[in-house]
Amino acid sequence: MNRINKVVLVGGTHGNEFTGAYLIKKFEQYPHLIQRDSFETLTFFGNPKAFEVGRRYIDKDLNRCFQIQDLENPTLSSYEEIRAKDINQKLGPKGKSQVDIILDLHSTTSNMGLSILLGNHLHPFNLQLAAYLSVNHPEVKVCWAPVIESRCLQSISEFGFAIEVGPVAQAVLNAELFQKTEKLVETIWDYLEAYNQGSISHTNSTLTLYEYVKDIDYPRNDLGEIQAMIHPQLQFRDYEPLNPGEPMFLTFDGKEIVYEGESTVYPIFINEAAYYEKGIAMGLTEKRQVTV
Amino acid sequence: MNRINKVVLVGGTHGNEFTGAYLIKKFEQYPHLIQRDSFETLTFFGNPKAFEVGRRYIDKDLNRCFQIQDLENPTLSSYEEIRAKDINQKLGPKGKSQVDIILDLHSTTSNMGLSILLGNHLHPFNLQLAAYLSVNHPEVKVCWAPVIESRCLQSISEFGFAIEVGPVAQAVLNAELFQKTEKLVETIWDYLEAYNQGSISHTNSTLTLYEYVKDIDYPRNDLGEIQAMIHPQLQFRDYEPLNPGEPMFLTFDGKEIVYEGESTVYPIFINEAAYYEKGIAMGLTEKRQVTV
Repeated sequence: MNRINKVVLVGGTHGNEFTGAYLIKKFEQYPHLIQRDSFETLTFFGNPKAFEVGRRYIDKDLNRCFQIQDLENPTLSSYEEIRAKDINQKLGPKGKSQVDIILDLHSTTSNMGLSILLGNHLHPFNLQLAAYLSVNHPEVKVCWAPVIESRCLQSISEFGFAIEVGPVAQAVLNAELFQKTEKLVETIWDYLEAYNQGSISHTNSTLTLYEYVKDIDYPRNDLGEIQAMIHPQLQFRDYEPLNPGEPMFLTFDGKEIVYEGESTVYPIFINEAAYYEKGIAMGLTEKRQVTV
Repeated sequence: MNRINKVVLVGGTHGNEFTGAYLIKKFEQYPHLIQRDSFETLTFFGNPKAFEVGRRYIDKDLNRCFQIQDLENPTLSSYEEIRAKDINQKLGPKGKSQVDIILDLHSTTSNMGLSILLGNHLHPFNLQLAAYLSVNHPEVKVCWAPVIESRCLQSISEFGFAIEVGPVAQAVLNAELFQKTEKLVETIWDYLEAYNQGSISHTNSTLTLYEYVKDIDYPRNDLGEIQAMIHPQLQFRDYEPLNPGEPMFLTFDGKEIVYEGESTVYPIFINEAAYYEKGIAMGLTEKRQVTV
């Protein structure tokens, strides 16, 4: 990317993730906080109808509706499928968007701290930004989940990415995480301004990247009912190493179920509320050192 | 109460409070855990339809539908209003129920630990049970909220009460809290058995009781939109003293709002997700020492 011209900050893509939703409201009230001289910033509220009723979505998860074949499919007509097409018209069209970067703000019941979720293509621009943030905000972790991210709102723009903050319950504001997320957004905006001004000096640095490998579901019976919970030793341990033989689940009658993989993994999205219905108890990642 | 004959354990009254919902499923699978010789135990699932869709309720909060005038009002016809009348037929009728004790299991995003919520009448029986539990489970706190409790499911039975556990996000299982709640239920069942056997020795003891005084709403603008969050210094500090002049809220633009009451209070249900729509940021209680 030569120069950033237009950036869109999105929140409320999930109506019960209040951190992003209320940050968008704040930035709309105090736009100078994210105005910078060298590029245009817009704010955008993803799913106001779901926010009104305090739910993730009305009919369907909006943030899985942005695959190009779905955006182009005229038969898809649920509330969120239509909303996705509408958003794609406003901010896209995907693949040919005039928006350089869409940053979508999410929150999670998992202990993800401040996470940057990178999308489909690992552009050097995104990697350098992520490396900068993880050096300057030691709490920041960086994930790469190409398959998931290709269905997400931010994939409309080529350099789009998402922020996940947690742990915070759905439909709740946590002031500390709200302020940290705001600070991170403002740091990103300062970086973009410095990038346009040519004042980012590109020094080789090493970035720790958590690469999404696969999902793990809860143990279930034949009816699909959950038979175990996240093990207390794993709860809130996102990004920490999970070794073969270590406990993952605890059944309702108190039996441990251990991780049976062959090598150490780093679970994320452990016990995310919205993923019970998706059949995801956690995502497993591998930890990589990348020179950027 | 001379003798306990029939007890009903309820969970899933709110469909997204998984601790109680899954405990009911467990006890239905392993009924011996709550079978005792001297009284009958039934389990009951409060709102299975809301649980199926992972929401607190379908149309209306079921746990506010049990006032006697509402149960007797034939014009009330939302899903939960009809469900409440149905439950009242099965477990009641309220005021003349054959069930001695209904114990309803709830969870909360507030840091309520293990809380016993006592209802309308402070029966010596309930106070003695609460005192026994708070001595034997030092984590147990005891609240008295007469106005709220009179609208709740457990009010169908004369000696009904509720358990609240937290903090846990909506629609999430926390294994540690699940196990603690199970243990507490089994301790209560053992107590009831001992009570019937006459082996509870009544010694005067002191119980710390948190008496509900009033609700505090979030600061809002003219449109009813929230203008501030729970202050980080108050978040997760349920049952701790809040003194006049100490911070309660933090506005989105970073200003502190302090508690302006005249005496020390003990907030509970701080930042409960389901209470945003009810206009409740927290409940204030006063701490009392009661001899029972």
